[in-house]
Amino acid sequence: MDDTVPQKVVVHKDSPRGVHFRRAGPRQKVYFESDEVHACIVTCGGLCPGLNTVIREIVCGLYHMYGVSRILGIDGGYRGFYAKNTVTLTPKVVNDIHKRGGTILGTSRGGHDKSKIVDSIQDRGINQVYIIGGDGTQKGAAVIYEEIRRRGLKVSVVGIPKTIDNDIPVIDKSFGFDTAVEEAQRAINAAHVEAESIENGIGLVKLMGRYSGFIAMYATLASRDVDCCLIPESPFYLEGKGGLYEFIEKRLKENGHMVIVIAEGAGQDLLSENLQPLDQKDASGNKLLQDVGLCISQKIKDHFARQNKMSINLKYIDPTYMIRAIPSNASDNVNCTLLAQSAVHGAMAGFTGHTVGLVNGRHTYIPFHRINEKQNKVVITDRMWARLLSSTNQPSFLDPKDIEQAKKAIEPANGLLDDEQAKKAKEPANGLLDDECPEDK
Amino acid sequence: MDDTVPQKVVVHKDSPRGVHFRRAGPRQKVYFESDEVHACIVTCGGLCPGLNTVIREIVCGLYHMYGVSRILGIDGGYRGFYAKNTVTLTPKVVNDIHKRGGTILGTSRGGHDKSKIVDSIQDRGINQVYIIGGDGTQKGAAVIYEEIRRRGLKVSVVGIPKTIDNDIPVIDKSFGFDTAVEEAQRAINAAHVEAESIENGIGLVKLMGRYSGFIAMYATLASRDVDCCLIPESPFYLEGKGGLYEFIEKRLKENGHMVIVIAEGAGQDLLSENLQPLDQKDASGNKLLQDVGLCISQKIKDHFARQNKMSINLKYIDPTYMIRAIPSNASDNVNCTLLAQSAVHGAMAGFTGHTVGLVNGRHTYIPFHRINEKQNKVVITDRMWARLLSSTNQPSFLDPKDIEQAKKAIEPANGLLDDEQAKKAKEPANGLLDDECPEDK
Amino acid sequence: MDDTVPQKVVVHKDSPRGVHFRRAGPRQKVYFESDEVHACIVTCGGLCPGLNTVIREIVCGLYHMYGVSRILGIDGGYRGFYAKNTVTLTPKVVNDIHKRGGTILGTSRGGHDKSKIVDSIQDRGINQVYIIGGDGTQKGAAVIYEEIRRRGLKVSVVGIPKTIDNDIPVIDKSFGFDTAVEEAQRAINAAHVEAESIENGIGLVKLMGRYSGFIAMYATLASRDVDCCLIPESPFYLEGKGGLYEFIEKRLKENGHMVIVIAEGAGQDLLSENLQPLDQKDASGNKLLQDVGLCISQKIKDHFARQNKMSINLKYIDPTYMIRAIPSNASDNVNCTLLAQSAVHGAMAGFTGHTVGLVNGRHTYIPFHRINEKQNKVVITDRMWARLLSSTNQPSFLDPKDIEQAKKAIEPANGLLDDEQAKKAKEPANGLLDDECPEDK
Amino acid sequence: MDDTVPQKVVVHKDSPRGVHFRRAGPRQKVYFESDEVHACIVTCGGLCPGLNTVIREIVCGLYHMYGVSRILGIDGGYRGFYAKNTVTLTPKVVNDIHKRGGTILGTSRGGHDKSKIVDSIQDRGINQVYIIGGDGTQKGAAVIYEEIRRRGLKVSVVGIPKTIDNDIPVIDKSFGFDTAVEEAQRAINAAHVEAESIENGIGLVKLMGRYSGFIAMYATLASRDVDCCLIPESPFYLEGKGGLYEFIEKRLKENGHMVIVIAEGAGQDLLSENLQPLDQKDASGNKLLQDVGLCISQKIKDHFARQNKMSINLKYIDPTYMIRAIPSNASDNVNCTLLAQSAVHGAMAGFTGHTVGLVNGRHTYIPFHRINEKQNKVVITDRMWARLLSSTNQPSFLDPKDIEQAKKAIEPANGLLDDEQAKKAKEPANGLLDDECPEDK
Repeated sequence: MDDTVPQKVVVHKDSPRGVHFRRAGPRQKVYFESDEVHACIVTCGGLCPGLNTVIREIVCGLYHMYGVSRILGIDGGYRGFYAKNTVTLTPKVVNDIHKRGGTILGTSRGGHDKSKIVDSIQDRGINQVYIIGGDGTQKGAAVIYEEIRRRGLKVSVVGIPKTIDNDIPVIDKSFGFDTAVEEAQRAINAAHVEAESIENGIGLVKLMGRYSGFIAMYATLASRDVDCCLIPESPFYLEGKGGLYEFIEKRLKENGHMVIVIAEGAGQDLLSENLQPLDQKDASGNKLLQDVGLCISQKIKDHFARQNKMSINLKYIDPTYMIRAIPSNASDNVNCTLLAQSAVHGAMAGFTGHTVGLVNGRHTYIPFHRINEKQNKVVITDRMWARLLSSTNQPSFLDPKDIEQAKKAIEPANGLLDDEQAKKAKEPANGLLDDECPEDK
Repeated sequence: MDDTVPQKVVVHKDSPRGVHFRRAGPRQKVYFESDEVHACIVTCGGLCPGLNTVIREIVCGLYHMYGVSRILGIDGGYRGFYAKNTVTLTPKVVNDIHKRGGTILGTSRGGHDKSKIVDSIQDRGINQVYIIGGDGTQKGAAVIYEEIRRRGLKVSVVGIPKTIDNDIPVIDKSFGFDTAVEEAQRAINAAHVEAESIENGIGLVKLMGRYSGFIAMYATLASRDVDCCLIPESPFYLEGKGGLYEFIEKRLKENGHMVIVIAEGAGQDLLSENLQPLDQKDASGNKLLQDVGLCISQKIKDHFARQNKMSINLKYIDPTYMIRAIPSNASDNVNCTLLAQSAVHGAMAGFTGHTVGLVNGRHTYIPFHRINEKQNKVVITDRMWARLLSSTNQPSFLDPKDIEQAKKAIEPANGLLDDEQAKKAKEPANGLLDDECPEDK
Repeated sequence: MDDTVPQKVVVHKDSPRGVHFRRAGPRQKVYFESDEVHACIVTCGGLCPGLNTVIREIVCGLYHMYGVSRILGIDGGYRGFYAKNTVTLTPKVVNDIHKRGGTILGTSRGGHDKSKIVDSIQDRGINQVYIIGGDGTQKGAAVIYEEIRRRGLKVSVVGIPKTIDNDIPVIDKSFGFDTAVEEAQRAINAAHVEAESIENGIGLVKLMGRYSGFIAMYATLASRDVDCCLIPESPFYLEGKGGLYEFIEKRLKENGHMVIVIAEGAGQDLLSENLQPLDQKDASGNKLLQDVGLCISQKIKDHFARQNKMSINLKYIDPTYMIRAIPSNASDNVNCTLLAQSAVHGAMAGFTGHTVGLVNGRHTYIPFHRINEKQNKVVITDRMWARLLSSTNQPSFLDPKDIEQAKKAIEPANGLLDDEQAKKAKEPANGLLDDECPEDK
Repeated sequence: MDDTVPQKVVVHKDSPRGVHFRRAGPRQKVYFESDEVHACIVTCGGLCPGLNTVIREIVCGLYHMYGVSRILGIDGGYRGFYAKNTVTLTPKVVNDIHKRGGTILGTSRGGHDKSKIVDSIQDRGINQVYIIGGDGTQKGAAVIYEEIRRRGLKVSVVGIPKTIDNDIPVIDKSFGFDTAVEEAQRAINAAHVEAESIENGIGLVKLMGRYSGFIAMYATLASRDVDCCLIPESPFYLEGKGGLYEFIEKRLKENGHMVIVIAEGAGQDLLSENLQPLDQKDASGNKLLQDVGLCISQKIKDHFARQNKMSINLKYIDPTYMIRAIPSNASDNVNCTLLAQSAVHGAMAGFTGHTVGLVNGRHTYIPFHRINEKQNKVVITDRMWARLLSSTNQPSFLDPKDIEQAKKAIEPANGLLDDEQAKKAKEPANGLLDDECPEDK
């Protein structure tokens, strides 16, 4: 295993390279004439900070960079394609929208009837389709793209992946994620203040994260006030040795209060059976989850009431809608702007059937199937989760076996003082290591 | 030139690798015993969001991860080493400090008298020195480290690079930068509101950036309200064709108002000679600059008063201290935490003479000389500046020759529709390109 | 009825005056010597923005204005009097606490065992007791005061009334109220964004207000985005003509979305009987309420699901803890400071058995019984509620008879164009009224 | 002197009453028919938080309460009357504007040419004129009103007084003031952080307040971090005993840092003569002031540089434009809404020649001349300034004689322990006073 980090990534032509993506950006040859372009934009699925910035920048990018002025907003998600209402989008209309949360186009779940949508595209003479939405939406986009190819239409279909949970694979970070982590701090702060102000106070905050705990993990790392972070990727149990109840009791005895952050998809196996969702899904195809925050809150209260040895005060906070609905912060505004510009450059150059995204710090075009084939998840044997565990001091809730494995992952064999490789490094006289790896000879 | 982006960077053992750095993280063998460690922390130079988070996390990291409890805060920068006052740092003392701006240790410029400092380190029996500061400070740290080596002391010297301007080379992004860009939005918003509310309103905002315009560039990209961004790396002129005055007049005629962002180090050559600083430097060795914001404001007012054809209303905003003094945002809190943990792991493992930093997304140990040898600057022929230009629509203020060159840089020869390589890619029947590069055969 | 407003209130010596209160402020004769004072501060009940500011300013006021330095913080509410832990309070300890939410002293409900508390006061030699809390707490304070009088102790007991709901009578406005209304805007904004972004979107926000709807009313007036405000003082019904369901349907048809604000004590009679609280009370003596927000949300969803003619999307937001836990805003900081200073001046002057409060814009001392005898409520036949109704355009949910009565209240008989008194006023030639009442002849 | 505060103000019919104003609110008889109303709105002078809320609520009030739909926005202040551009205002256009700072109508200074304006009103058939602006603007409104009367036009002229400085007499508080005090906290916080982080750090913040120091006074009272507040009403001197320099030196020696707040109109007499403005005024008739913040900063720096005994670090912050340009907070939104509704009710009832405002907590109609005749100022012998002095501990910078007088004002002769009246009150056995004044016999 290589424990070093190159200052500059140089990939050689003749080395096996794995999957590569085309870099996003303006192209010398433009496929569409400005005045023949008829673009449309649609937003689908749940709200996410930055939707309006993406809309604004597609409109402004098309207008200012390519002189395109026929741009249509589809109203209310995919099903807006087969409704009458559309919104005419101009730089003036979208001028201030990035300072507002939500989406000015409206959104909805589901509704991707490919024939009706492509009929609508054909009827209206649209030749650039920008689709902003989560994985259900991007799968829909792939289907629409296939149908368009089948019909032989000269229409460019570009997806801009939207997921506040950051669970889209391949890309470095999804837009809105940074803003969500930032805004989650308010709820965690409130939980902390409530917990600190009362004896045996527990503040429990539920954050977004249906299948992946990125928001919970980063919000915990950012806050420095969280005692325990529970995510879907890391199973946990309540009762007995090494369980959550034991940890709560221990932490309350030490500190008098504690803060717990739980991702909405965590601990679904712990919810009582009669409450189990019958594998129901919403219109976007997402499994319907129970409100794990309410359930776990009640279970914790019941446990300590039953125990009768410790009287606790639990305050439960669910800031989900307050997080989703805010405008994007500066960092996400930059992300959204560059994504939108990439999307516009790609469509104008005649590329189709892809989404745009940041890969290894560079904007790229990614074919639909790459981001639709699986989900991005927190790797609990990875450094970041290890850093979280070491910063909250929470138990790993794992079997000893698993812990052993996890430990190996975070303590690499090389790079240590007595290490072979390290010895070869120029060791200072006083036995302290100089920390640069040898340059290549 | 390779226009593709690898999904996963795989660097081969036998390929030439350029400079590599040791990856940061916990090591199997710890060099210091917990109870023999006597650490100290010092903060130097100007304020930057996140200083208190770094202090907090060094203290909490040493205490919780390694059981170290003797930690000293040096009061008021380097010169605090040879003063009497020190602060005892415990997890309790630092518990809430990350929610406050500034540094609880105080700071100052200059004062790195290496002998007196190393004497003080020796006298107090300190064996881990954490130095948080900008490039002047890190140069001082390198000198202290050399002196410690010379004296043969078993003292680990670790730098944590601090620069709100993001002008330290090698590392991806410095802590506090994200917060600064975020907070700068307030000033830009205010400038925009003021400008919009009055005829021929101009809002002019000065942002930090003595030698490099990163804050100005990212704040401009994030805001979507800025018409012109001026940075030290991109020279500009005022009078005549293609000059700033002409652009202002044009933009006011089109829109009725405009917003200008200027980095503090921009346009220093334009300031009237009698105001030129006589190469004076402050105690940190930074060149003393004139307030370019005030000067340019006056020049613009004078120009339009002289012209007598257009009555303008210019409002000048300098938010510098209001930006520097705020607490770090969530994203920077994560950065600061990981930097501090890396620093602690490194020092405990016996590494010395390095700073910690993010390189290509990974935390590493970087020898002092690597980050002291030059400054990070905005490359004005690079994509990011091109994106800025295309989003503000401002003139490049460059010679036609330079423009030609810049254009080449952002429009690579490959990846276009009629391109050789692109042709080889599976081209869809309808002439639209599928955007994935061929996988390696 | 007199429809005029005096520029300066002049009350005559010989006119009947009703209840008057002593004005708060420093007195020429101080009852206690600085060095004999031993003060204590206790905070009770739920959190409210500004608690820490009040604590800070009592400590700083005693110290800076009167040279008092023996000040004790009682830990965790009334029951802290008979626990061992206390906190020594100095200007240094409290220096920054006003920037944090919650109370550094901790709080709890109930626990006012008068004998044990007065024993503790006597044992510790305390002679000034500052009690910050809601109406349960102030009743406790009155009991403690009586016990202290009975025992003949020279102890001054001063209450600072705390109620985020603004439901304490006599006083103009309670501290924390302004901050709560401000912070509630976030939740209402989020509800509005969520509602606007989806077809037939309903955003429902529950705000504090167990018995009185002031927060809901002012938050609604401040937001300009709320379509319906429901408070305990104004009963409403769900089904049938003039009911809530009908109004929701109407508003959704008109606008496509709506925002509802509901105070936690509103509509308690509508909750299904099996869910009715059995007149249970919490330790502070507050009636335990059901979560009306959750219940009404479910009822609305069920109604429209049953109807089957309109598919709605309801998002429920409960920001209670996020509002309670924030630091006080500037306006409340001023309030808290002046309240604390009044309390200190009063205690030092030897006054006892009172609370401090703003009455008609002036700080006064109010005997306990005056503020304990009833609760402040929104008067729904008053101007402010009429203004709310006219600004949301919601139905009054009242019987026609009640409406008639309410109308009379807001449209006074005098001051109209055809009115006797108005006629006597100097009427301008053009038939438009000059709007000054005649000065006294 | 009467030191008591009545719980309820009851004014008797037959007592002399001083000036009274007509109470604002809806009237039974409406003067204008809905469809004959043609209203216009104009905003003049500097920006102030809440302008857009007032505009929004006039439009929504006219539309929703009275069915008026012909409403014109005059573009760019008074001089917009004789320009061609106007904006059609509908509830939809103004729906979100209260969340933005500035004024969507634009503004300018001066330009009140009464004949041209009244010509324009006559030509366009406007019969309701809403004028939002400061004292210059209100004087202009009075002149326009007189001209309209002279011409015998049936036009209602209503002013909404705007002054961020709160310097308009008669009314309790002007809109935007609360928001300004709140936002000023950011600058003061930054100044405090900067000052605390460096040896002998001084943070100096200039706030608005050309003739009156209300913002500076309330911002100081709210912050709890300010050591010295300087306002136009309280003269101060720099050199010598009891001067500002001496106080700075003293405070730095005690605390190591300090924060000074200065109103823009303070200390104008101290500015060196050659810098004195030659009684120049801007287009609104405001005296042009020098930037006292910059001047005093320089003087303080020079003084301590000259003295050579103390090296200080002064950071100067001018947040003026960042304060003016933000949207109004919740409290001001309520104010603005009620002001706008009052204005609409008044105009519709046929009242003219007045402004609307809060007097003793009640909304009233006030004839122009009452608010134009003088300015509201901080009374430095009053309680509020005394509270400020006692909370900052700053010198009064007054002659001993003045101090004596000021003292008398805040320490009333009555209400003390040994006081005649107090004796008559029921005195508790323990010698501590019960604090209620005797009810009237």
